[in-house]
Amino acid sequence: MKHFPPKIAILGVGLIGGSIALGFKKHFGAKITILGSCSKIERAQKAKKLRIIDEVIDPHSQPLGLRSANLIILATPVLEIIKLLKTLSKINLADSLIIDVGSTKEYIINAAHQFLDPNVSFIGTHPMAGSEFTGFENADPNLFRNKPWIVCEGKTINNQQLTIAKRLIDILGANMIFTNAKKHDEIASWASHLNLVSASLLISTIAKQNNWKDVAQIASTGFRDTTRLASSDTEMKKDIILTNKENIVEALLCLADEIKLFVNLIQNGNAEALTNYLANAKSIRDNWLTNYFN
Amino acid sequence: MKHFPPKIAILGVGLIGGSIALGFKKHFGAKITILGSCSKIERAQKAKKLRIIDEVIDPHSQPLGLRSANLIILATPVLEIIKLLKTLSKINLADSLIIDVGSTKEYIINAAHQFLDPNVSFIGTHPMAGSEFTGFENADPNLFRNKPWIVCEGKTINNQQLTIAKRLIDILGANMIFTNAKKHDEIASWASHLNLVSASLLISTIAKQNNWKDVAQIASTGFRDTTRLASSDTEMKKDIILTNKENIVEALLCLADEIKLFVNLIQNGNAEALTNYLANAKSIRDNWLTNYFN
Repeated sequence: MKHFPPKIAILGVGLIGGSIALGFKKHFGAKITILGSCSKIERAQKAKKLRIIDEVIDPHSQPLGLRSANLIILATPVLEIIKLLKTLSKINLADSLIIDVGSTKEYIINAAHQFLDPNVSFIGTHPMAGSEFTGFENADPNLFRNKPWIVCEGKTINNQQLTIAKRLIDILGANMIFTNAKKHDEIASWASHLNLVSASLLISTIAKQNNWKDVAQIASTGFRDTTRLASSDTEMKKDIILTNKENIVEALLCLADEIKLFVNLIQNGNAEALTNYLANAKSIRDNWLTNYFN
Repeated sequence: MKHFPPKIAILGVGLIGGSIALGFKKHFGAKITILGSCSKIERAQKAKKLRIIDEVIDPHSQPLGLRSANLIILATPVLEIIKLLKTLSKINLADSLIIDVGSTKEYIINAAHQFLDPNVSFIGTHPMAGSEFTGFENADPNLFRNKPWIVCEGKTINNQQLTIAKRLIDILGANMIFTNAKKHDEIASWASHLNLVSASLLISTIAKQNNWKDVAQIASTGFRDTTRLASSDTEMKKDIILTNKENIVEALLCLADEIKLFVNLIQNGNAEALTNYLANAKSIRDNWLTNYFN
């Protein structure tokens, strides 16, 4: 990639892709041009109308339109990123940098190595930010501010490209964390994927009960927050689960074991043991909030 | 209770008690006097200094100080409410109305019937509002605005007292829902207690892992919200669990079953079934937010 600021193509202008677009526009102003695609062309046209992107592209039907971009950001759910990598493999992108922002990394980076020409620069990344509000209508140029943005090792990454990635992540206000894909998928299953899934399991369990209508009537802010991620994008979650199966299953089974352990604690009726358990959980959460969360 | 606005005693000036105090002060201004107690006298003195309450009382050592109040609100964790009911049983409160705002109801209402003179008016209630931020420093006069406030049937409640309770709940901006204690404890276990406990279980499960420090570093807003209730008051949660054991154990075991069911779904690898499950959970949560949550 020779020019900076780059001509950018964002494939998948949703909450994340749209927020990246707005963050770059906020920083670069009229100096950048952003091409963008959505799963439906009308959506991309609406994103253009809202000035989130400047030009509509359709990577699968007109991949050559991508050759004018020197930075291509893949911001769709994971399995669509795989399809996009196959499409990108058919055109000459030797001068471009391709960055994905998908939620799992080993599956995507393996596919990139498999499909892309070794001359094409590809970096697998994962911004740890999101919202239950989907679509570019909810995009926010500050979504990534002070949030971790994981960047993974890869066969085709050199220092120059890493520097560019770091610069772009800095512009969006996020903090780059460098690791490898396997480790990313392990830690993301605990930090993010388990929470995504458990929110859906929690509301499904509750809504199955005969008294759901009464419960729904009195449920309040605690319920709202604990189940918030159940409202996030379905396709995104499904693809995360399918491409990080083993880690997510392990995390879920640990949570089920913890529930059994806690049920025993309740049934033993030992008030001190219950207090210790809950106080320890509170202390861990409070410390995390103070020392890690920005 | 003859005078309105009443002279109020709030026993347990924490987040909830403090928010009730501020809500009444906002509405009545200088026309009311609020007596208040905390588990430690210095805390009550600080609440007075912050003008959340007007006078410090100590119900256990000087219960007669309560006789000048005509509305007594019990706003401590559940098991301390039981102790307060025993203390209140020793003084003549025939002209007063006692209202509790504890998180479980059958245990408290049974104790009120057991300990209080049948001439004493007692109403068991539960405002469905809260925060992970504890203490009167985080009190908010608008905490209850548009939130459900459950009021339970009881042997000693007459229509006049119910009207007063409704008027007080209106003043705080909440919506009164009338039910019985047994039903409250059942629906609250799903709407609130399961969420309180599952947040603690989730963070305990995650923090047990060897990679917790790496996880803590990349955990972000989703993790923050899903585990938020783990930071709420330990004593409050412990007392809820001890006084609503059976319902909470049932809810936890249902959640564990749901996890097993979902793990099977993942292991079967049926993308359509996964999509349907996640889309259904999203639709339930989205509908709840639109139709029930204010």
